[in-house]
Amino acid sequence: MLLRNYKEVHSKPVEMEGAKGVGIRWLISQKDGAPNFAMRVFEIQPNGFTPYHKHDWEHEVFIRDGEGTLLSDETEYKIKAGDAILIPPDEPHQFKNASDKKLEFLCLIPNKGE
Amino acid sequence: MLLRNYKEVHSKPVEMEGAKGVGIRWLISQKDGAPNFAMRVFEIQPNGFTPYHKHDWEHEVFIRDGEGTLLSDETEYKIKAGDAILIPPDEPHQFKNASDKKLEFLCLIPNKGE
Repeated sequence: MLLRNYKEVHSKPVEMEGAKGVGIRWLISQKDGAPNFAMRVFEIQPNGFTPYHKHDWEHEVFIRDGEGTLLSDETEYKIKAGDAILIPPDEPHQFKNASDKKLEFLCLIPNKGE
Repeated sequence: MLLRNYKEVHSKPVEMEGAKGVGIRWLISQKDGAPNFAMRVFEIQPNGFTPYHKHDWEHEVFIRDGEGTLLSDETEYKIKAGDAILIPPDEPHQFKNASDKKLEFLCLIPNKGE
């Protein structure tokens, strides 16, 4: 059994092209023996965003705190704490935070996406 | 893309033997086209608990709100909001809420566990 508080896990800046003001904490991954999927927390600062991109694995997201928008297939959706989101494989997506407060969400991916 | 707030999803009582005061909301599952794993929210009322049991798939848990204990391999661990937990396949486990407030956590499982 592995138990750790997310605040104990270092938040690493996301340095992908097209990202701004984004940090990631890897809470559970293959390194910890996770057999199938990984759990990460993303933090997006006010005016920050993730890259608009796609890949051949899904995201399962849960908004922990804050609010923002999700651009998916050219439509912008409002997202807020308590929202659960499935982004299927190959669907373009981008998370943005236009609020004045940090946006935090869990984002899980299958091991093939690591 | 699927987007739904967890409060919009019906909380179903968990009626397994050994469970008390537990509700589950299936946020994302195979029915929604999730290719690999499912996201559920559990709610445990004060003095409630999940069954002490094991199975051949893992749990990845994130405590959303509240506090409680996790019994795992005969040891009791305190758990609280922000904790991430990996329970490997075949490890006995039980979540309990001895507090006076609801305990809520995300619990993700591979599709084979559905």
